[in-house]
Amino acid sequence: MSINTFGRMFRVTTWGESHGPEIGAVIDGCPPGIALLESDIQPWLDKRKPGQSRHTTQRRESDAVQIMSGVFEGKTTGTPISLVIANEDQRSKDYGEVARAYRPGHADYVYDAKYGIRDWRGGGRSSARETAMRVAAGAIARKVIGAVGIRAHLVELGGDRATRFAAQHLDTSALNCADPDAEERWAAMLDKARRAGSSLGAVVEVIASGAPAGWGAPVYGKIDADIAAAMMGINAAKGVEIGDGFEAARLTGEENADAMRPGADDGPPDFTSNHAGGTAGGITTGQDLIARVAFKPTSSIRTPVDTVAPDGSATTIATTGRHDPCVGIRAVPVVEAMMALVLADHMLLHRAQCG
Amino acid sequence: MSINTFGRMFRVTTWGESHGPEIGAVIDGCPPGIALLESDIQPWLDKRKPGQSRHTTQRRESDAVQIMSGVFEGKTTGTPISLVIANEDQRSKDYGEVARAYRPGHADYVYDAKYGIRDWRGGGRSSARETAMRVAAGAIARKVIGAVGIRAHLVELGGDRATRFAAQHLDTSALNCADPDAEERWAAMLDKARRAGSSLGAVVEVIASGAPAGWGAPVYGKIDADIAAAMMGINAAKGVEIGDGFEAARLTGEENADAMRPGADDGPPDFTSNHAGGTAGGITTGQDLIARVAFKPTSSIRTPVDTVAPDGSATTIATTGRHDPCVGIRAVPVVEAMMALVLADHMLLHRAQCG
Amino acid sequence: MSINTFGRMFRVTTWGESHGPEIGAVIDGCPPGIALLESDIQPWLDKRKPGQSRHTTQRRESDAVQIMSGVFEGKTTGTPISLVIANEDQRSKDYGEVARAYRPGHADYVYDAKYGIRDWRGGGRSSARETAMRVAAGAIARKVIGAVGIRAHLVELGGDRATRFAAQHLDTSALNCADPDAEERWAAMLDKARRAGSSLGAVVEVIASGAPAGWGAPVYGKIDADIAAAMMGINAAKGVEIGDGFEAARLTGEENADAMRPGADDGPPDFTSNHAGGTAGGITTGQDLIARVAFKPTSSIRTPVDTVAPDGSATTIATTGRHDPCVGIRAVPVVEAMMALVLADHMLLHRAQCG
Amino acid sequence: MSINTFGRMFRVTTWGESHGPEIGAVIDGCPPGIALLESDIQPWLDKRKPGQSRHTTQRRESDAVQIMSGVFEGKTTGTPISLVIANEDQRSKDYGEVARAYRPGHADYVYDAKYGIRDWRGGGRSSARETAMRVAAGAIARKVIGAVGIRAHLVELGGDRATRFAAQHLDTSALNCADPDAEERWAAMLDKARRAGSSLGAVVEVIASGAPAGWGAPVYGKIDADIAAAMMGINAAKGVEIGDGFEAARLTGEENADAMRPGADDGPPDFTSNHAGGTAGGITTGQDLIARVAFKPTSSIRTPVDTVAPDGSATTIATTGRHDPCVGIRAVPVVEAMMALVLADHMLLHRAQCG
Repeated sequence: MSINTFGRMFRVTTWGESHGPEIGAVIDGCPPGIALLESDIQPWLDKRKPGQSRHTTQRRESDAVQIMSGVFEGKTTGTPISLVIANEDQRSKDYGEVARAYRPGHADYVYDAKYGIRDWRGGGRSSARETAMRVAAGAIARKVIGAVGIRAHLVELGGDRATRFAAQHLDTSALNCADPDAEERWAAMLDKARRAGSSLGAVVEVIASGAPAGWGAPVYGKIDADIAAAMMGINAAKGVEIGDGFEAARLTGEENADAMRPGADDGPPDFTSNHAGGTAGGITTGQDLIARVAFKPTSSIRTPVDTVAPDGSATTIATTGRHDPCVGIRAVPVVEAMMALVLADHMLLHRAQCG
Repeated sequence: MSINTFGRMFRVTTWGESHGPEIGAVIDGCPPGIALLESDIQPWLDKRKPGQSRHTTQRRESDAVQIMSGVFEGKTTGTPISLVIANEDQRSKDYGEVARAYRPGHADYVYDAKYGIRDWRGGGRSSARETAMRVAAGAIARKVIGAVGIRAHLVELGGDRATRFAAQHLDTSALNCADPDAEERWAAMLDKARRAGSSLGAVVEVIASGAPAGWGAPVYGKIDADIAAAMMGINAAKGVEIGDGFEAARLTGEENADAMRPGADDGPPDFTSNHAGGTAGGITTGQDLIARVAFKPTSSIRTPVDTVAPDGSATTIATTGRHDPCVGIRAVPVVEAMMALVLADHMLLHRAQCG
Repeated sequence: MSINTFGRMFRVTTWGESHGPEIGAVIDGCPPGIALLESDIQPWLDKRKPGQSRHTTQRRESDAVQIMSGVFEGKTTGTPISLVIANEDQRSKDYGEVARAYRPGHADYVYDAKYGIRDWRGGGRSSARETAMRVAAGAIARKVIGAVGIRAHLVELGGDRATRFAAQHLDTSALNCADPDAEERWAAMLDKARRAGSSLGAVVEVIASGAPAGWGAPVYGKIDADIAAAMMGINAAKGVEIGDGFEAARLTGEENADAMRPGADDGPPDFTSNHAGGTAGGITTGQDLIARVAFKPTSSIRTPVDTVAPDGSATTIATTGRHDPCVGIRAVPVVEAMMALVLADHMLLHRAQCG
Repeated sequence: MSINTFGRMFRVTTWGESHGPEIGAVIDGCPPGIALLESDIQPWLDKRKPGQSRHTTQRRESDAVQIMSGVFEGKTTGTPISLVIANEDQRSKDYGEVARAYRPGHADYVYDAKYGIRDWRGGGRSSARETAMRVAAGAIARKVIGAVGIRAHLVELGGDRATRFAAQHLDTSALNCADPDAEERWAAMLDKARRAGSSLGAVVEVIASGAPAGWGAPVYGKIDADIAAAMMGINAAKGVEIGDGFEAARLTGEENADAMRPGADDGPPDFTSNHAGGTAGGITTGQDLIARVAFKPTSSIRTPVDTVAPDGSATTIATTGRHDPCVGIRAVPVVEAMMALVLADHMLLHRAQCG
């Protein structure tokens, strides 16, 4: 089975291969009456767009999104919203190698193992190009959840951690980094990796602020479980944690407790800490929702690696196409988008059951 | 919305509260003709059962499972399998405190915030007692996936890591630990924590061996995404990683590459390493599937913590009921069960699309 | 795949065989805070209960429902509601014949063809006993949809149509018939059929009053399509029509048009007729929702019929167990329940998307 | 909620409005390795295409389908198949009336009631133009189910029944009618209705031959229930019956029994009749699957009808756009397509559970 739909109520179905004519998404279940123009979506896509600095792939795509349905006179109608982006710069010739041999760390081998057929051009369906549609859909999800703000940034690159959070620096950072000092170090690391034909991993943190207490669901629809699936499903993701995550496993019960006290003005209670990352029992507490996602280093590297050909024979492969030396950088808007999709879905699910 | 069903094709729906008369599960979509008796399920439940050593809660439950439907003359019929376990030792009086004040780290507050009503007896639906049904369902899933072996164990407790893997020690370990030395240290740490009314976190690793290449699905049904959701949905889980996980974010592309070479006897290729943890592009590679799950320290501690009452007023709470000082220990069979559920589901999904 | 869950948001999963220890249902997604006792459900079950007149099967079941979860202090909590009914009068010996040969018109043969195994005791999972749980779940759905009234009755039996609608007669009719004259004729027909070891078919009409305009969904979630699936999925159903149904195919566009005029007090518009049966484009119009369901004559008859044995050899079968001479009579509360389930589901779905 | 996806395993999501730039479909879950070109789909679309005789709407659409993804070197890859058809002949000016007043029998009023907004151009999403994508998706489903043949035809028009079945006549019939005499009568009736600005209803019968015993599922995924939903979800459908349908309700148990006898060559058993229409207990018997669908007369008629405007005021409307005088004629390929979608879905579902 291939499963290309995300969400239960706010549902996003994406389609398209890296080197086909277009990629697209269908968003079903969006509430009606929301103002929506292509210019509401485009800025988020531009954040993800390749070729914006020397640190990302030089593939050139304008990534101009078109709304093909579901909007009438500038407002959503409640019917499916179809979004399309043309693939412009496809250079299939770069990918002759991919047809010839399985790239380690890529989906090449497993697609053949599963389907017995594989569109090898640019990775086909397994290309991170698909994430453009996640970002586009996420832009609509942001409009659904209204006042909830979502911001992601790199907190670690190549094992080197950021130690400051300067929000205004993040606005202009080519590396989606809120720590100017870390950014300087990381830029040097990336230059070195790129020159060496190597690649680096990264950790992205995402914070959603403003969701009320009560979104999510017990047991198998926990909001943290849905966030985990959303994030782990991003290309190259290898780990997800909520709140203190793996560090929580090293605390005692007292250290980890998020004590509560009466809130101001008869409002909801305050918490004196947020080790939990904004969720308890799978349901939002009203605090910031915080997750971190680990991205492996880009698998496409220029260093030759032993591999096998589709006929099973031994060979080596060195990937010479245009690739990001660190996929974590451009993953930042994708992480934000996936958080937006999870929240929009749970906002509607909550409204369904609890009014 | 409350979402109490796990899986797409092999679907498990659980029900029941900690202190109701029974808990249960309905397994739908199980293939027919599989030999199944209660005695196939009971041993897995016994692994999870409380009260088996001084390191786990002293609540006494025989956890005897009954098959109520879906099996005829010892074989599954393809119709829904209903499983039931009686709640025997309910001591609701222990939980008067829970009615009076929200326990930090528990779902008490968010249930009230979401539903406006809460079954406070023993945590109600949010109790880890629900995981008994996951284990029972997982026992059936194991029969579906046949030759795939699944084994989980603690690799870290209270921040202290195990360094050896002695499989035979694991068979008898009261702490689900494969490292005899670590177990000795951990036993002492647990005794100390229990005496102090405190609690500790842990990290569980799970390995599934024998799944063929090709299970899973690209994009939104990635097997690693489904594993992430399955694990993060276990009570007290705060982080999930696949293969090298967060450590992969600290490697270079060369270090992280799992090179391939021709397999023996014209079989599938071999891999020279398994940084990826057995999955690429969301699809199994045929290597061991490896995941790790971080569990926070038990939130129920005897140390009083500031909190609020349902009416919003300030108070403190100290939980005096019977609780595991480290929920990670008894989470081991639950982690195994969730892995079994994910694999059974994907085995059937794969068969649907690819024959 | 076996699919034992009905609904998208208000989801009912049933389990159990005719001659197992119990049958049950799990209702997931029910809104919290709804007053619910077993005594709210029991009266609807009593309407369906066998053995209430000479015209229905003499199997004796008290059909006493128990709520096992999801309710606390008399109110739904938003967590899964588990319902159970014990099977009391199972007489498996009556069914030795069913093991020996496939009953024409029953699911005996196809279960073996599909699953390679079959619980032949009383029809196993394919028994109409399962519909008791639909009625129980429908009783809860009725509480969700509040003011919407649902009433079904027989409009035809053995090809003989009712011509009057006397609501007060329906309240006490042993045949769920609103026409006293028809009831008299039908009682005689049923006596004759029963004595002859034969059986008769029937048509049930159901009317739901009070649903607002706007429930339902375009394209693949049309409320009439969901009603069609709900009704056609009842045992022995062979046809479903909405509004004028097949008769509409014999009208001209002018005859079939439901003209509109301004409603009273600035309310929604009035319709001057209701050929459409309360739905347009898959969405409720605010008029009465009207459907009719055709039920075939009971397949279990005393007249011997040619058939084959599981080994493929020729034989004959005459069903001597206790059976309804006309399944349509006891289908009436089931039809009502399925309508309630569809409406509750769509009420919640509508609230999710449109607030 | 808007629900624009059909199927569980072979899933079709459609999008697009009558007068937007394009309409489209995404087919997810299609098995890999199936030969598929646009020329495999186009002939089925051509059967449905408007403007082919004087009896159907004169809207001119070439309905040329484009495959945008999911096919590589002429074969399906197992990834989503995106199909697109451009809207060419949109004449929005014809529809000024639709903006001004609600057309009785159309979805105009209920869209406003549900969503508070409505794309009135050509009926927007509620237009039967959407069914072009069903036909396109159905063409792919036919390839999945391989040897199963599906054929639909008109058995009744304006209350006048066909009495012969001449397969070769059907191949060229402009009215999708297998009875040459009926076709002559119907052509005259249609001419008269068109001249009068009126419209007629029709009944379509569909027969699927060659499906093995065992497809379908008990209880809530009965193949007849899925067929009922599939057919009732087609624009203008008002009734569905399986096998003898409503007529079965007028038979006795003996008359309705489909007796069985040993099959030839140790094959599956034969049936001596097919009152059931090829299904028992929701599962195929291996006989022909037979369903009939009632279509109301086209709601768009030139005769003025009383209605209300969006502001609630009284008005009348006469629809002067180009419309089919009998929507049942062009519904024939849509009915076939929906049958193909149901069967492809159940073939895969069956394979998932039963191998």
